[in-house]
Amino acid sequence: MNEVNHQIAEALSRIRQSKPLVHHITNFVVMNDTANVTLHVGALPVMAHAPEEVVQMTQMAGALVLNIGTLTSPWIESMLIAGRAANEAGIPIVLDPVGAGATAFRTQTSQRLLEELQIAIVRGNAGEIGALSGAGGLVKGVESVQGVEDPAAVAKSLAGETGVVVAIGGKRDFLSDGKRILGVDNGHIWLTTITGTGCMATTMAAAFAAVERDFLIAAAAGLACFGLAAERAAEKAEGPASFKVALFDQIYSLQPEQLAKGARVVEL
Amino acid sequence: MNEVNHQIAEALSRIRQSKPLVHHITNFVVMNDTANVTLHVGALPVMAHAPEEVVQMTQMAGALVLNIGTLTSPWIESMLIAGRAANEAGIPIVLDPVGAGATAFRTQTSQRLLEELQIAIVRGNAGEIGALSGAGGLVKGVESVQGVEDPAAVAKSLAGETGVVVAIGGKRDFLSDGKRILGVDNGHIWLTTITGTGCMATTMAAAFAAVERDFLIAAAAGLACFGLAAERAAEKAEGPASFKVALFDQIYSLQPEQLAKGARVVEL
Amino acid sequence: MNEVNHQIAEALSRIRQSKPLVHHITNFVVMNDTANVTLHVGALPVMAHAPEEVVQMTQMAGALVLNIGTLTSPWIESMLIAGRAANEAGIPIVLDPVGAGATAFRTQTSQRLLEELQIAIVRGNAGEIGALSGAGGLVKGVESVQGVEDPAAVAKSLAGETGVVVAIGGKRDFLSDGKRILGVDNGHIWLTTITGTGCMATTMAAAFAAVERDFLIAAAAGLACFGLAAERAAEKAEGPASFKVALFDQIYSLQPEQLAKGARVVEL
Repeated sequence: MNEVNHQIAEALSRIRQSKPLVHHITNFVVMNDTANVTLHVGALPVMAHAPEEVVQMTQMAGALVLNIGTLTSPWIESMLIAGRAANEAGIPIVLDPVGAGATAFRTQTSQRLLEELQIAIVRGNAGEIGALSGAGGLVKGVESVQGVEDPAAVAKSLAGETGVVVAIGGKRDFLSDGKRILGVDNGHIWLTTITGTGCMATTMAAAFAAVERDFLIAAAAGLACFGLAAERAAEKAEGPASFKVALFDQIYSLQPEQLAKGARVVEL
Repeated sequence: MNEVNHQIAEALSRIRQSKPLVHHITNFVVMNDTANVTLHVGALPVMAHAPEEVVQMTQMAGALVLNIGTLTSPWIESMLIAGRAANEAGIPIVLDPVGAGATAFRTQTSQRLLEELQIAIVRGNAGEIGALSGAGGLVKGVESVQGVEDPAAVAKSLAGETGVVVAIGGKRDFLSDGKRILGVDNGHIWLTTITGTGCMATTMAAAFAAVERDFLIAAAAGLACFGLAAERAAEKAEGPASFKVALFDQIYSLQPEQLAKGARVVEL
Repeated sequence: MNEVNHQIAEALSRIRQSKPLVHHITNFVVMNDTANVTLHVGALPVMAHAPEEVVQMTQMAGALVLNIGTLTSPWIESMLIAGRAANEAGIPIVLDPVGAGATAFRTQTSQRLLEELQIAIVRGNAGEIGALSGAGGLVKGVESVQGVEDPAAVAKSLAGETGVVVAIGGKRDFLSDGKRILGVDNGHIWLTTITGTGCMATTMAAAFAAVERDFLIAAAAGLACFGLAAERAAEKAEGPASFKVALFDQIYSLQPEQLAKGARVVEL
């Protein structure tokens, strides 16, 4: 077993032992799904967005997810309030810039969150990260319909500029902290047939970030764990919905030793 | 194969080739489900309701769904903004008047949307359409507990008055553009045991409206496709939730040639 | 068959005959799930929170659920408006104080709803009820991570003080109206692996409260029915998501005579 796989498997064990709270300020479409994914991987979910309580909720969390799908202005304010509390307490923030590139509102909000907060990990599809990095890409709604030419270079460059671990989802996920570049090859084509799998991957990265302070490893762990569960689930899929049921079952049942064996993370 | 079935099957092929974006401003209960249904039929979903971005989102869409479940005043404003942008760009709007007839707020909002916007298709249950047409009907919550006496006549009359294709859901769906009347006999009793199937049918109609400008045919296609998937799913159902999983799987796997053969659309 | 089991089974029959509307003002995470649970047990769900319509919606309902997950200030106002209408019309209110104890906002809102409205049943986990009763308990997000020492005594004491039936979820659920104490032993460990099962149990209690005016029996009936469905579903579970599908299927198919036989309600 290589060193990265060992670290990833150890991190999964830590999630299941410590059950960190993952506070989400996220979109309406995926709230139920990402709450379940959080539980299944072994952590505890909470969704809360009221300005009156986000500080208190964040302070008891191991990680904070900011996901800008179905965004409105009051939610941006809550994200900033929660984000500042997370930064003060040293709680990692994971940003999912859903639909960045599709509308100016989403692109600008993503940029604002990246500027005003210290984000640990940003995970998006190639179009979204392309829009944030200025490297191109095209987003139709929340779907990347055109990626970037060299995602490894884009991830590294944006990470270097911002100090944020950047993860670009795709057949191979590309991740960088500005120095190292990792590729994660776990996953399955069925993941493209259901809504919210990007958001779920982000939640997985956040659960790992709560227990692993090397955020590049945490992000890779989340994506490898999610992708491996998808591979195992695909065997039972008769369509997208039965795949989703199997995916959630597999996230729950996946054991650290299976992850250590099945994670396909490559150093680039 | 009759002409209508041929048109319907062709339209399904076009959805899968062109993958139109279907922009939803819809209720919280069904957001995840209708996003998945959109994907499974072959289109791309986006849910967005912020006034700052609905124009931009609508402009890249092939169709706009306005669904008034879990309605509040700010959402009405967003629906009107998005709707005007859709009208200017010639993008068809599909309205689901969820709960019209149950409260004055929902009845009046439905009427306002029908008056201020040029709607392509309105799809509701018999109670909801009855409330909008003044033909009677009774709605308890969002359920039609009393329909209208002659749904074919009600659909034709309301369509004639408004210039909107009217679709009334039921064991037989009745559709009219004010001149033609169609009946769609596909469907299954299991559809009445899960929440949001009306909303899903509306989403299906919208996906077809994005690729078929004869909106009566588009609406019939959406309802036939949805109902046929339900018939196929019923074989695997052990209850409402396993039916729902099978329904989504079947929407995804349904092929145009199967739809051409299985659609039961009658001209009345 | 003992008397309580007979009452519970009779109540389930009444739900299926009269199909009462259960109006929910509830959180975004569980809206779809609790709507489906409402339908599956035999009632009709509606989710509506606009101040313009909550009075009218409540007035046609058999019960009102107030669930404070994903709470914001405007929703509190809507809960109070709907709650007053329910009180005036004699419609039972069932409160789920999701996350009380985790943040001051949720604890205070729960207390305010209990003070300003006449609540029929409050159902929460041990940490939440502990926070409301001052008996201790610890809530992390929405999870009870530390219960109360003597839940039967806490339930009885809080019920006595407030005049509200108190139900504390757990391996054994403890319920009291201030005089009688009941334990419900139905349930399954799988229920702890998916999000929203507490909220679903609350919805079940509300469906029964719509047809059974002895609210201690109604609450016990809802929890026994939900727990028995979980026991039956566990046989088919391969993980949390397949368990959830089976749970919903079982709620739908559970017959009054099976409930009469399988309910495990003890008088303490």
